[in-house]
Amino acid sequence: MGGAGEFTQKVRIEDAFWSKTRETVRREGIPYQWRALNDLIPGAAPSRCMRNFRVASGREPGEHAGCVFQDSDAAKWIEGAAFSLRWHPDPDLEATVDGAIDEIVAAQQPDGYLDTYYIINGLDGRWTNLKDNHELYCAGHMIEAAVAYYQTTGKHKLLDAMIRYVDCIDGVLGPQEGKLHGYPGHPVIEMALMRLYGVTRDEKHLKLAKYFVDQRGQRPLYFAEEDARNRNAFYWKDSYFQYQYYQAGLPLREQMEAQGHAVRAMYLYSGAADVARETGDTELAETCRRLWNSAVKKRMYVTGAVGSSEYGEAFTFDYDLPNDTVYGETCAAIGLVFFARRMLALEAKGEYADVMERTLYNGVLSGMQLDGKKFFYVNPLEVLPEASLKDQHKRHVKVERQKWFGRACCPPNIIRLLASLEDYVCSVSGRDLYLHLYVGGTVKAEVDEKPVRLRVDTDYPWNGAVRVTVETGAAFALKLRLPGWCRSWSLALNGAPVQAEPADGYIALERAWSTGDAVELALDMPATLVRANPRVYEDAGKVAVTRGPLVYCLEEADNGPGLHMVRLGETTPEEFQARWMPDKLGGIVELQSPGARESDAGWGDALYSGDIAIESVPTKLTWIPYYAWANRGPGEMRVWVRR
Amino acid sequence: MGGAGEFTQKVRIEDAFWSKTRETVRREGIPYQWRALNDLIPGAAPSRCMRNFRVASGREPGEHAGCVFQDSDAAKWIEGAAFSLRWHPDPDLEATVDGAIDEIVAAQQPDGYLDTYYIINGLDGRWTNLKDNHELYCAGHMIEAAVAYYQTTGKHKLLDAMIRYVDCIDGVLGPQEGKLHGYPGHPVIEMALMRLYGVTRDEKHLKLAKYFVDQRGQRPLYFAEEDARNRNAFYWKDSYFQYQYYQAGLPLREQMEAQGHAVRAMYLYSGAADVARETGDTELAETCRRLWNSAVKKRMYVTGAVGSSEYGEAFTFDYDLPNDTVYGETCAAIGLVFFARRMLALEAKGEYADVMERTLYNGVLSGMQLDGKKFFYVNPLEVLPEASLKDQHKRHVKVERQKWFGRACCPPNIIRLLASLEDYVCSVSGRDLYLHLYVGGTVKAEVDEKPVRLRVDTDYPWNGAVRVTVETGAAFALKLRLPGWCRSWSLALNGAPVQAEPADGYIALERAWSTGDAVELALDMPATLVRANPRVYEDAGKVAVTRGPLVYCLEEADNGPGLHMVRLGETTPEEFQARWMPDKLGGIVELQSPGARESDAGWGDALYSGDIAIESVPTKLTWIPYYAWANRGPGEMRVWVRR
Repeated sequence: MGGAGEFTQKVRIEDAFWSKTRETVRREGIPYQWRALNDLIPGAAPSRCMRNFRVASGREPGEHAGCVFQDSDAAKWIEGAAFSLRWHPDPDLEATVDGAIDEIVAAQQPDGYLDTYYIINGLDGRWTNLKDNHELYCAGHMIEAAVAYYQTTGKHKLLDAMIRYVDCIDGVLGPQEGKLHGYPGHPVIEMALMRLYGVTRDEKHLKLAKYFVDQRGQRPLYFAEEDARNRNAFYWKDSYFQYQYYQAGLPLREQMEAQGHAVRAMYLYSGAADVARETGDTELAETCRRLWNSAVKKRMYVTGAVGSSEYGEAFTFDYDLPNDTVYGETCAAIGLVFFARRMLALEAKGEYADVMERTLYNGVLSGMQLDGKKFFYVNPLEVLPEASLKDQHKRHVKVERQKWFGRACCPPNIIRLLASLEDYVCSVSGRDLYLHLYVGGTVKAEVDEKPVRLRVDTDYPWNGAVRVTVETGAAFALKLRLPGWCRSWSLALNGAPVQAEPADGYIALERAWSTGDAVELALDMPATLVRANPRVYEDAGKVAVTRGPLVYCLEEADNGPGLHMVRLGETTPEEFQARWMPDKLGGIVELQSPGARESDAGWGDALYSGDIAIESVPTKLTWIPYYAWANRGPGEMRVWVRR
Repeated sequence: MGGAGEFTQKVRIEDAFWSKTRETVRREGIPYQWRALNDLIPGAAPSRCMRNFRVASGREPGEHAGCVFQDSDAAKWIEGAAFSLRWHPDPDLEATVDGAIDEIVAAQQPDGYLDTYYIINGLDGRWTNLKDNHELYCAGHMIEAAVAYYQTTGKHKLLDAMIRYVDCIDGVLGPQEGKLHGYPGHPVIEMALMRLYGVTRDEKHLKLAKYFVDQRGQRPLYFAEEDARNRNAFYWKDSYFQYQYYQAGLPLREQMEAQGHAVRAMYLYSGAADVARETGDTELAETCRRLWNSAVKKRMYVTGAVGSSEYGEAFTFDYDLPNDTVYGETCAAIGLVFFARRMLALEAKGEYADVMERTLYNGVLSGMQLDGKKFFYVNPLEVLPEASLKDQHKRHVKVERQKWFGRACCPPNIIRLLASLEDYVCSVSGRDLYLHLYVGGTVKAEVDEKPVRLRVDTDYPWNGAVRVTVETGAAFALKLRLPGWCRSWSLALNGAPVQAEPADGYIALERAWSTGDAVELALDMPATLVRANPRVYEDAGKVAVTRGPLVYCLEEADNGPGLHMVRLGETTPEEFQARWMPDKLGGIVELQSPGARESDAGWGDALYSGDIAIESVPTKLTWIPYYAWANRGPGEMRVWVRR
């Protein structure tokens, strides 16, 4: 099967749902995060990120502060700003980015090295702890920032600096005799080098990416040697996953399951999929497919969250999906979106786009408050505020989003993803133009070397009607995704019904398109009661409510406390009422349904009883989209509800 | 209301259920544990316990090894051996105990001090870390050993040594100016001093116990001062419970909830109940009642286990009773038995005896393998072996009992409780003779200053028929406990039905009893489906199966894997079949019931679906008593099963 091709098309998003969110990102998130990186948010954990660059360049005295990977926050912010400039030019923001790049590049060493932690603390220590100290992770993110800013603005100061830094890295690490046979403890540079290669077409960049993918986990194990050299106690020695925390317990091609730190896993698999596609490496593609299946078909939450355990922020085992102790890091969901798009590029199957959509609308979007100013690191599917306070093993589950974090990987990550949503909407492969996500706006693409321009109008995700109007035509196959959640749909071309058989999750309409041709896809979007595979023990006897791509949840704000005492009983999907609430939570389609509420009436202080019945009273339940939870103060929330 | 009085009656147990277990304790457990204390168990974690005493006395060179509270293992073992000698004289065992006492007392310092950790590591350090270093805990256990051995054998070498040690402690700690105003980090000495006071009637011993109960948590906080002096980082600084880990965050009388380390809580409350009863302190009794209600009516598992969280081995909050991440330490259940008996002594209410019985037959007994040689520290109500291996937060949940532990508090604790079961069976208060536990054997008591002798015959807990025959009569009220689990019963006196109204959980039969009088109590013991209070979110929609005092469970060995896919459906208690299985698990009444088993047929690799139904097929379920689980190799187990 062929892939869905290139995603780097010219998309302009003008969409009721996403434009609002993206405007929040642009107007609030990007300026807010710049202030955070410069320690200007009262009451937020200090970042010291930009200050570290000034200390490293000698422009300011001081010590390195924050995490070893603090540099990456600036990189992700620049990347997000670069994406935002692509669809909203803003000379002031561009000047700010230029200033930031100036501060960053000023810290670069004569040999190209650029990591403030080691520049400040002593260059003799560099390359000695690839496993934990994130040099290559920071480099990877900065490469991505450089590529994005260059692609938006044509400015290449940071790009040039990063090419020099890659030369420096390439001089130190690699398979050749005399080089260190190391690789990053936290992947991302693999994806970054592939993006850099897309700009430079310098084989060195492709080779280095491929080296990092292939060297990982080879014997003798580099990380174990490094630990021995550093006389480090191995932090994960009591863990089940051991070096698989870093996806380095085995060579990637020998790995059978998604294991270890979920963000690292997603980033590594994404980079591997890039390398597999670019090099036509079918074995590596099969490895990616196997790890995809493990992560997505055995270890993913219904929201697209991954990482079942706070310990190691990690995968655990098949069907282990606890809703209340989940990690589900925002960055891991973002990584899954990256991975899904790359699998789609490898192989044009709707299942990849389904996961991409599921994760984007639920597990990613839940990471940011509606005002764009607060963030979740952990995205639970069930919250009891008292447990988050009093049960140590649930204290990572926050009931309200935080202003910022000492380790602030998630906030700028969500910004850069949302600001680059264009890159996930459509792709072109040969004569095929794929629409993967239904987002209003225009698409300008080159299909089979001919220019094509489409306009998409939709109220997605609130309504499944999608209208695609051809503004510039050509002969090509329009491949419209039929979402996996959709059970009933209709299609019309210029007002006339069209019969079409979807294949691999896409409906193909091939013809010589003329200006004004209009395709209308109507996806029925009823409330649906979703069950988990019976092997998922945490969801046994429960259902989740979805509508279209959105997962819904119950919140205390609408339904009162004691949500575990709520049951859906025999309520059918047809009994759910959907209504547009323009003033609620930024505008949502709310669902209401009948249900039952158990009470402890009659129980007094009895804790166990064979006699006392549990009374249920009929109740009305109000459901909101999961992504919008925790925007009305602390309270209970749950996605999976008992039948 | 009056209390149930004195439990120190002469009971001889000859009981099909308990005699077998106690013979296992005597024949296997006690010799096995003596070998463990002397590091003679191949493959078990070394104890070094007895060796520490020899090192402390200079009889052997070496360092202190093991936990700071290693001495207490010897103390609990001696106490267990002393109890066993009470009902099974054994000159060899007695000689072994004498030898152990000789080694222990040889280590005593001229001023009476006796704790090997500080004797070996330097006496200048003693009394400097009461919070964590368990000096008073070891002293408490050794006092209990001394009292038990004295009461059984009349030998007072250890008793004298402990009286000297108490003098030493009393000289250092107390409310007076110039003494340290400290108290134990781990309670037990409170109970121990009350037992010592029972033998010595020395007011000093009562006063010291009362001081320890009352000083705890007073401001300025002794433990905080100690931490400051020692420049210790406070281990629990990130916890919710803070100094309540030690039940020292507030004075006991101001504490509203059972909080912190569950064993410490149970031991402290037990000692406080002793003090309250002895001194007639109604405020302290009310404190005990309040903490009882919190622990038992809001925070206790159906098995009598307490301590919901591995973190701090601690209580969490009301109705937080996770079955799979539970701690439920065997020692905490034992402590709850101690506390229950003391509450009963304070106040003759069946609810205390109900908890005592529930805990003894379930949460305590589950701690020991049927062969008496392996032990659980943690007693879960739901086990998935893969989770115990691969989910770090469930790794404390072992799927098989262990031979021994580096911190071996539980094995000798269960031995000493089972060996002293006589002390929980009956009590005398004024003209009332209470039978609290139905255990076959004889009771010799003095009621209203007249000798009474009863014989009890029963197949409890397998059968609810209890026959009490008067062997030596007198005029008194026989108070037979009507267990809280019993819904239907009949009573006969010398073959004639008797109508009686139970009050506070006891049926009173008052008369001038003659030799040969026989009372027959028939407690109906059907299988019962028990629900938890609807506020217990982990048990929502589930039932537990009980029969009489026993909680039952499903094991993989009988029912195959995937127990979370088993449902009871509409199965009624009447559909349960009970049958005596003499050769299974040491002889049990097994239950069989219809049920339903869900399958993942049709699911393929789907993880979530709104379309795929979950098929159920009727199945036969086999239930075994919870205490007998994990005696047939590793496998799944669960107590709470979905409807």
